[in-house]
Amino acid sequence: MKLKVKDVNLSTGGPLVAIINEEDAESLGLRALDRIKIRRLRTWREINAVVDISSKGINKGEIGLFEEVLKALDLEEGVNVEVVLADRPKSVDYIKKKLIGKELAKNEIMAIITDLMINNLSEVELTYFVSGCYVNGLTLKESAFLTEAIVENGEKLNLSKRIILDKHSIGGVAGNRTTMVVVPIIAAAGYTIPKTSSRAITSAAGTADTFEILAPVALTVEKIKEVVEKTNGCIAWGGAMNLAGADDKLIKIRHPLRLDPEGMLLASILAKKKAVGATHVIIDIPYGKSVKVKTKAEGARLGKKFIDLGKLLNIKVKVVLTDGSQPIGNGIGPLFEAKDVISVLTGGGPTDLRRKSVMLATEMLKMVGVRNAHLEVLDVLNSGRAYEKLIEIIKAQGGRKHIKFPKPKHCFPIMAKKAGVVKEIDNNKINKIARIAGSPFDKTAGVYLMVKRGAKINKEDVLFNIYSKNKKKLEDAIKAAEEMQPIVY
Amino acid sequence: MKLKVKDVNLSTGGPLVAIINEEDAESLGLRALDRIKIRRLRTWREINAVVDISSKGINKGEIGLFEEVLKALDLEEGVNVEVVLADRPKSVDYIKKKLIGKELAKNEIMAIITDLMINNLSEVELTYFVSGCYVNGLTLKESAFLTEAIVENGEKLNLSKRIILDKHSIGGVAGNRTTMVVVPIIAAAGYTIPKTSSRAITSAAGTADTFEILAPVALTVEKIKEVVEKTNGCIAWGGAMNLAGADDKLIKIRHPLRLDPEGMLLASILAKKKAVGATHVIIDIPYGKSVKVKTKAEGARLGKKFIDLGKLLNIKVKVVLTDGSQPIGNGIGPLFEAKDVISVLTGGGPTDLRRKSVMLATEMLKMVGVRNAHLEVLDVLNSGRAYEKLIEIIKAQGGRKHIKFPKPKHCFPIMAKKAGVVKEIDNNKINKIARIAGSPFDKTAGVYLMVKRGAKINKEDVLFNIYSKNKKKLEDAIKAAEEMQPIVY
Repeated sequence: MKLKVKDVNLSTGGPLVAIINEEDAESLGLRALDRIKIRRLRTWREINAVVDISSKGINKGEIGLFEEVLKALDLEEGVNVEVVLADRPKSVDYIKKKLIGKELAKNEIMAIITDLMINNLSEVELTYFVSGCYVNGLTLKESAFLTEAIVENGEKLNLSKRIILDKHSIGGVAGNRTTMVVVPIIAAAGYTIPKTSSRAITSAAGTADTFEILAPVALTVEKIKEVVEKTNGCIAWGGAMNLAGADDKLIKIRHPLRLDPEGMLLASILAKKKAVGATHVIIDIPYGKSVKVKTKAEGARLGKKFIDLGKLLNIKVKVVLTDGSQPIGNGIGPLFEAKDVISVLTGGGPTDLRRKSVMLATEMLKMVGVRNAHLEVLDVLNSGRAYEKLIEIIKAQGGRKHIKFPKPKHCFPIMAKKAGVVKEIDNNKINKIARIAGSPFDKTAGVYLMVKRGAKINKEDVLFNIYSKNKKKLEDAIKAAEEMQPIVY
Repeated sequence: MKLKVKDVNLSTGGPLVAIINEEDAESLGLRALDRIKIRRLRTWREINAVVDISSKGINKGEIGLFEEVLKALDLEEGVNVEVVLADRPKSVDYIKKKLIGKELAKNEIMAIITDLMINNLSEVELTYFVSGCYVNGLTLKESAFLTEAIVENGEKLNLSKRIILDKHSIGGVAGNRTTMVVVPIIAAAGYTIPKTSSRAITSAAGTADTFEILAPVALTVEKIKEVVEKTNGCIAWGGAMNLAGADDKLIKIRHPLRLDPEGMLLASILAKKKAVGATHVIIDIPYGKSVKVKTKAEGARLGKKFIDLGKLLNIKVKVVLTDGSQPIGNGIGPLFEAKDVISVLTGGGPTDLRRKSVMLATEMLKMVGVRNAHLEVLDVLNSGRAYEKLIEIIKAQGGRKHIKFPKPKHCFPIMAKKAGVVKEIDNNKINKIARIAGSPFDKTAGVYLMVKRGAKINKEDVLFNIYSKNKKKLEDAIKAAEEMQPIVY
């Protein structure tokens, strides 16, 4: 059937979608979410798209195309195209296979991820894939295939180094900005560490949000290569590259139900490591009742999976189980977390952030065979070489060598209502309060803790300050703090 | 945040969707598929919608709205609306509960179906619901709740009758147009049978496609009431009403993976019966290797579920397991199936279609306590009263009392390559060939079988004719017939 292109002037941000009129759908024998082949006349260019059927907006004889399809076929409004019914891709059969509980082979997972990346799968089909992975789980082999498929379908960083270090922290602990301390230590010790980090999803700030105060983080793969070759390290936002684009698309689908299929989580993390060529990776698994991993045993079980999957992927993985019972560092929110980091690198700082960063860096150097790793880390940190390295990285990424922090605007102290000893600081609640105050979009919004677990407090001592540039948001955050009582004493 | 409405001039055909610019999404802290509340300024009208984020087409400060949202808020292009982040509906939590394998309570299933009907759930969320029902199954109770929720959220036919009969055939058998014979028999015998039928999904023709040759089938609930009150029966297309609108929306989601979660199938079928007030329902379950139910045992198991679910819904269900090993009747495709039906009602006809229809009608009359039901059915049929009743129904639905069939255009005979005895006629293959020829959209396209199982044939005997109004489609169908060899002899 010949149809005339209508530019709907929208992008789907993914799946290739075409909209046709009800009557044309009927003559073609098409149902919603079926597939058609669209061929540009007088050329051999053609593409498959998923069909949506509209009773309004698209007339008989027209085909409404989103940007992705127009671009793929180099079409514009008014041009005629030939449309025929097409088979659904093989990958849809594999998705069904996973949903009914069967194990997928390497080529099947590769087909799914490749089709995902060329926008050949609809959101409904992708959701079935996520459901299958969630309900039936992924075997270790499937996770390895998924990791490789994600890496294969994304950009890769090619550094010609025999040893490349990397780290990852499982989420949930507020603050916990160890990456920004560890990367300069490792880089200053002479090892390569091309670190990519994420932005906050549910927490108050991600490493990318925080480092952005000091330097641009949205770097291309070429730029990262340049920075790492110059300084040994970098702290870049992974989302700006296409290192694991397939993973980002799956995360969008997982978001509405907040699903974290374990096999996908493993693949998601190790794919980003594999894509930068990491050979030695440390995984920090904090456990505690207000973080993702609730118990030490659960952390150990998850840790073993990382190690086993690493073996299949030829990555040496070390796991450390850490205390996730309260925030690490005092600042929560990009500005305050950045300040804590600079304080630690210049000799001061929250002791818990300092101690944990030193431990992580030490374990990493041990992995690559450095003797007296602990002394080496302390020397690099205390001599100021780590701080100098951070400044080097900031400069290389395009930041200013003289750090100048933005000023927070409004501040309100939350005070103790009675005397006592701090028993508990809930990570979720602290993150939530900081987000309500505007973090991470307002970089100067957040929470600054004045006490940590074990601290003795008197009535009217300040427990924490809340900051925001927006008075209304500050008020909301104060109200939330009063209601949630994140600190138990 | 205040945003200016942009009419994207499209309908989603369901979920309420709004598109906003990347930058605005970031300031609102919104991710794709999150929910927002859209409030029309200076009124109290507000609505929740799912957010899509576009890098193209929607500028900063704009919000792109589909028809469904514009209509719900009575908005037009250029008007300002207030947009805030909204919580996801409770029903999303219930969907997750089902996905992780827990049983849903009545109010939870009701919440999901109600939100589905007010377009408050995204396709991704609905897909997770279907996945949960498919992978974990539905308990009998859940199926009953689902049936009731579908009925509650749709239109209902209110006939003031103590006894209302209905029937349903599980799909897969080509031809098998028993409904058009049974309905006039039951109606002529004095019982009420408000039959709603579907159009073909994967088969060559549905009852609605076939009866449409004789009379309009897209009737409103009011019109059905009028027809049934006048004639005792009707044969209407269920899709034209909103009897089980929730079911139609779920079917769209199930389509890409061709998923048939059993609990949904049961609910889907019985909801349509419940919505017309049926008190006695016969379920015809054909079994055979080329239909949906493969074995008699499988049919019996499924049948028991219908009976048990019927009890919970206060519907008396009788199940008959029938031979599904070959098509019933000779004609496949709307025109040819209609011809078979008229032939049976006027005294002739394919004997298998006649015999099966008589059996079904007899069982139905037995259910409501008619003595000598078999003789009664034969009398109604052989006396011509059933045929007169069909003409009455055709007239009442708006058709012509003098039946005039359209003429098929091109015909091609498929001949036997050798002598033999017919062993097998594959339903799927016959349906496929008829569809390739253009059925059901081309009402005169299809297949007419000249042999049935057990027939002795000589070389060059005609096995079946293929019809189409389109020469190209006829050729494709001939090719398919040669390749598939639907008749084994």
